[in-house]
Amino acid sequence: KTKLSFIDIVSFLKEIIAKLDIKKVIHSVKVGIALVLVSLLYLLDPLFQKVGQNAMWAIITVIVVFEFFTGATLRKGINRAIGTVLGGGLGCLAATLADESGEIGGALVVGISVIIIGVGATYSRLIPSVKNKYDYGVMIFILTFSLVVVSGVRADKIMKLAGERLSNIGMGFAVCIFTSFIYPIWAGDELHFSTATKFDKLATSIQGCIEEYFVIANDKEKKATIDISGCKSVMHSKSSDESLANFAKWEPWHGKFGFFYPWEKYLNIGEVLRELAAMIISFRGCIQSVRQSSPTERDNIREPCEKIGLSLATILMELGDSIRDMKRCRAKSLITQCMREELSLLVNLDNNNNSTDHESTLGLASFIF
Amino acid sequence: KTKLSFIDIVSFLKEIIAKLDIKKVIHSVKVGIALVLVSLLYLLDPLFQKVGQNAMWAIITVIVVFEFFTGATLRKGINRAIGTVLGGGLGCLAATLADESGEIGGALVVGISVIIIGVGATYSRLIPSVKNKYDYGVMIFILTFSLVVVSGVRADKIMKLAGERLSNIGMGFAVCIFTSFIYPIWAGDELHFSTATKFDKLATSIQGCIEEYFVIANDKEKKATIDISGCKSVMHSKSSDESLANFAKWEPWHGKFGFFYPWEKYLNIGEVLRELAAMIISFRGCIQSVRQSSPTERDNIREPCEKIGLSLATILMELGDSIRDMKRCRAKSLITQCMREELSLLVNLDNNNNSTDHESTLGLASFIF
Repeated sequence: KTKLSFIDIVSFLKEIIAKLDIKKVIHSVKVGIALVLVSLLYLLDPLFQKVGQNAMWAIITVIVVFEFFTGATLRKGINRAIGTVLGGGLGCLAATLADESGEIGGALVVGISVIIIGVGATYSRLIPSVKNKYDYGVMIFILTFSLVVVSGVRADKIMKLAGERLSNIGMGFAVCIFTSFIYPIWAGDELHFSTATKFDKLATSIQGCIEEYFVIANDKEKKATIDISGCKSVMHSKSSDESLANFAKWEPWHGKFGFFYPWEKYLNIGEVLRELAAMIISFRGCIQSVRQSSPTERDNIREPCEKIGLSLATILMELGDSIRDMKRCRAKSLITQCMREELSLLVNLDNNNNSTDHESTLGLASFIF
Repeated sequence: KTKLSFIDIVSFLKEIIAKLDIKKVIHSVKVGIALVLVSLLYLLDPLFQKVGQNAMWAIITVIVVFEFFTGATLRKGINRAIGTVLGGGLGCLAATLADESGEIGGALVVGISVIIIGVGATYSRLIPSVKNKYDYGVMIFILTFSLVVVSGVRADKIMKLAGERLSNIGMGFAVCIFTSFIYPIWAGDELHFSTATKFDKLATSIQGCIEEYFVIANDKEKKATIDISGCKSVMHSKSSDESLANFAKWEPWHGKFGFFYPWEKYLNIGEVLRELAAMIISFRGCIQSVRQSSPTERDNIREPCEKIGLSLATILMELGDSIRDMKRCRAKSLITQCMREELSLLVNLDNNNNSTDHESTLGLASFIF
């Protein structure tokens, strides 16, 4: 009986492990390792005698700064370092000024400087361009400034304390960077591959729509089974793309990417793909609308439409692959040529069907719907 | 000369003030006030003798927890409180366990418990449902646990220290809540009004598109001047909507909103509006495409189209207003009636123009384009 339950537990664990995302596991283990490394500052006696209670700041730094993407970690760490230095420096200035102003004057100087820095820096955090890049740094700036200037009234050895804390934050940051670069998870790679995957998603959606349309035409039974979740995820990718690009800008030279990688172009491609996704979604709206043409008419256009759909999907896949592999898209001119032929085929077919000036009607109809 | 430069400065300041966003200014000033209030813990002698250096934690809490929206502040504060209590409790347990395991055994217990908690909690932070609601709390949990368990090997009065820190964090949080409820900025209100505004934006875009189409028809000069930035901002509103709804769920009863406000419905409306925005964007694509119908044909459909566009825009505005004022949409049935009439008018007009079975062609064309 004990053995059976043991097997149960193993299979249960296996299930859980199967559900785990390997990248997330790597990140979690890295955080664990970084934590243990930084705990050594406390645990090993010779180290502890050197750093003292300030080792706390190294632990705090590791937990707060360590992020999923290496770029995000770097950004946060650098922000924290600069914010601490600037805030500490300004705080020291204000504290010495307060120290020389007597008891009541000093309290006034502290209060006024805290409120001015607090209000000004908080406002700057709400400005989009600052928020995107330096939000965390400004927060740490306010934090350090307030702590230094307020406690400066009490502690005399403020400079020594600041130096010790800073070196501890530096140690924490060093541990972060060190661990972060073991099996690094690059935001740049993520953006790269997610951009390439978007092409595939859109291609699948287009094919799905066209198949659906002609299945409806044949079966005469409406099933709204077109899966456009891929399309929607592309349409809503703007904010995640932007944050990835933001992180990627902080990442050092690695793997396929040089320093001056065109992240802006990735964002532009994303924007265009989002528009395409929007069109596919409204295209599905047309397919699912109540008013539809007769099955015979649909059958007439079936072949060229399916061809075009296939070409479109192939082109998109091809483009996605070429971005993924960072190669020149080999079939580009060929495919556009093929597309043009098929479009004219479709128009001809249409014109043969109905004798009147069909093209303008098509334009008209495309406006009305 | 001094006077002139003084006037210059005043006008410069005026310019800056004109650019400021009043809500952001209110938020910044509130943060400043909260900072000064919490600094009093340090500045006033009797208070400082009671709280000691732990007053630092109150300041840190204020700076880290105070967010733009009241709901976000509440969420972060409650997360911080729960995370601190849980992490501190578990940390104390582990620390006493380590204390009883001898020197080397104790270090092992500390190391292993830190790595297990660190890895497990970090992984849970990456799970979307946890990330959305408790990300900050879990981070504070890891932070507190590590600090307590690691320093527990050294400090004996860990419980007393933990109690003092907790009370200081509580004080900081109390100051945050107090200041946050002066001129509160509710995420719920923001979501409410932004949802209502979306209707207006879409209405403007639809009208813009239709005007543009017939101006092109008349002038024969193509100008791609349709402003669909409103549409795009609606299309990309998903993530900001979701975070607003997330904050709104933490907000207490206030103003127009009860406790059980249907935030999910707001998200659903947003989703539908995003689809509509997608359709408008692809509609603009049709208008700007190369293949267009002749000006005379366009003139034929001009009147009904403009009527329909106007009705659509009016309905959207009406819906937006009814959401904004939380009233029943008064003109609902009337307007849908009017819409139906005009649609049939359009179809009739079309059928008169070309004798063949036009409706099916329209359906066909709507598929092709």
